[in-house]
Amino acid sequence: MDYDIFEPGNVTFQSGMTLQNAFLAYKTYGTLNAQKSNVIVYPTWYGGQHSDNEWLIGNGMALDPPKYFIVVPNLLGNGFSSPSNTSPPFDQARFPRVTVYDNVQLQYQLLTQKFGIEKVALVTGWSVGAQQAFQWAASYPDMVERIAPFAGTAKTWPHDVVTLEGVKAALQADAAWNHGWYREPPTTGLRAVGRVCAGWGFSWAFYREERYRTLGYHSLEDFLVGYWEGFFLKQDANNLLAMAWTWQHANISANPGYNGDFEKALRSIKARAMVMPGRHDLHFPPEESEYEAKLIPNAILRPIESIWGHAVGAGVNPADTTFIDQSLKELLSQQVAF
Amino acid sequence: MDYDIFEPGNVTFQSGMTLQNAFLAYKTYGTLNAQKSNVIVYPTWYGGQHSDNEWLIGNGMALDPPKYFIVVPNLLGNGFSSPSNTSPPFDQARFPRVTVYDNVQLQYQLLTQKFGIEKVALVTGWSVGAQQAFQWAASYPDMVERIAPFAGTAKTWPHDVVTLEGVKAALQADAAWNHGWYREPPTTGLRAVGRVCAGWGFSWAFYREERYRTLGYHSLEDFLVGYWEGFFLKQDANNLLAMAWTWQHANISANPGYNGDFEKALRSIKARAMVMPGRHDLHFPPEESEYEAKLIPNAILRPIESIWGHAVGAGVNPADTTFIDQSLKELLSQQVAF
Repeated sequence: MDYDIFEPGNVTFQSGMTLQNAFLAYKTYGTLNAQKSNVIVYPTWYGGQHSDNEWLIGNGMALDPPKYFIVVPNLLGNGFSSPSNTSPPFDQARFPRVTVYDNVQLQYQLLTQKFGIEKVALVTGWSVGAQQAFQWAASYPDMVERIAPFAGTAKTWPHDVVTLEGVKAALQADAAWNHGWYREPPTTGLRAVGRVCAGWGFSWAFYREERYRTLGYHSLEDFLVGYWEGFFLKQDANNLLAMAWTWQHANISANPGYNGDFEKALRSIKARAMVMPGRHDLHFPPEESEYEAKLIPNAILRPIESIWGHAVGAGVNPADTTFIDQSLKELLSQQVAF
Repeated sequence: MDYDIFEPGNVTFQSGMTLQNAFLAYKTYGTLNAQKSNVIVYPTWYGGQHSDNEWLIGNGMALDPPKYFIVVPNLLGNGFSSPSNTSPPFDQARFPRVTVYDNVQLQYQLLTQKFGIEKVALVTGWSVGAQQAFQWAASYPDMVERIAPFAGTAKTWPHDVVTLEGVKAALQADAAWNHGWYREPPTTGLRAVGRVCAGWGFSWAFYREERYRTLGYHSLEDFLVGYWEGFFLKQDANNLLAMAWTWQHANISANPGYNGDFEKALRSIKARAMVMPGRHDLHFPPEESEYEAKLIPNAILRPIESIWGHAVGAGVNPADTTFIDQSLKELLSQQVAF
């Protein structure tokens, strides 16, 4: 086992449901220094696990294990504490609905209770990971010094709610899904999810210029099957639906601290923020990041000028990785006022 | 019956398949003048029938029945000559694959054989209708004086091929589809198609600003069910798949006249072209129309500055309708050199 487990006991979520014997799987890189001042949190994304984040971690990179203590917590529903491996009665279709806020609450428990951490130098992440970065800064404004969300927003805006409705509907059209009570995976639906997501994941120019060839695929259909269907066939259907619900309901203000006042939540962020939308991201268009960044007092908007669409943050294009890494280095080099 | 039927006998398509007793349903508005110089062709789109085009036709509008003879031919597969109503053995899943080129060939037969028309003042249309307009100009450069394709391109670019893969996969995930041999409609799949298309049909800003309220829907879910699921539940699944194939394979150069030389085909267009992409169209982004318009010798690019996304051409937003109508008037007022 290449990761650790944090067991907070029974966890009650915003939905009012309790997950018995919840656990948070996480992996750390590097060593916590004596002052506990070198902490970076780097949450995972829809369908990704901690190992899928490792492309951005390495000696000499911004996320530098010799220098920082990097904690990668797994999103609930991503295959660790998830519908697929929770005991009855909260298994499969009965897994509680979990918000991004709930995830961050649990990650906060991990950092404070397990490690006694009081300050976080940086929270960064991609997509739903970016949403967790925003949530960290809104939930704990005095604790989070910097955030660097890439290809993700502080709430899921309505169009992306619709996008995810399409993803869910494609999966649920497969009768083998059986409203979540399947014994065998609904593979037709999982493959359909791959094809639906293929359009949202990369940009017009990516497909026009056949950039999938750089990933080792030799035709469009090769890419659709090999990359997209392949990715989703490895996922559990209920896990995907649980994470889709989490994604659809992301909103840093949907909690007692802000009572739905989204602008107030953005204005309350004290962290120095480097907001990095993908220029051609069809899930999280730059226009929504621009709006959010304007309301965060200490934010820089730095679009990733790339045709890789949403996948700028998937670690699949070296130029985007370099861009993000350099931006993180710049941000980490900046002093913060509190 | 509010339309007419053209019966060309057996029609052989590019695929090499023959449709026995093919028929082309069409409707005309206005009267053909003695010189046969007042002809406008206005083909239909994916899922639309002639009556769905009528929002752009009316006294005093550019498409003015007192002035023009407007012919609206139905796309093969849209419910007239279609998988759903063709006799065995070419019914349901065995309906031949039909290209945009095939459609235009058939429309040409109608105009020349039935009406003796030699010149067309304008071909206009939305989406796959726009693709037919481009095809008309490429197939019959000396016959077509003007084209005004809106929210559609001269070929289906790769990203939109992917988009349609997602649409098809959502439908085909429903086992009731039964590879096309259903007796009852695969309604779960049809509803899923509605949800997938909802993301592609309108822009980020449309959903953010809740513009669906202007169409009489009171929430996002109300719109998803009432508009999107409602539209697709009325469609036949095999018809949708037939038209999706037509859409995916649109390419004005994919025929013996151009042998796949797309740029040559664009350069061969003699018509005065007013190319009108929707500024925030997620199916047919303006960047692809810009590329095409540059290669057409006599083209003006006039984006429709609207947040209605692909639906700029659906007749659902009065401002877009006015914009298109005014542009058509301008184009029709311009003399052509041949």
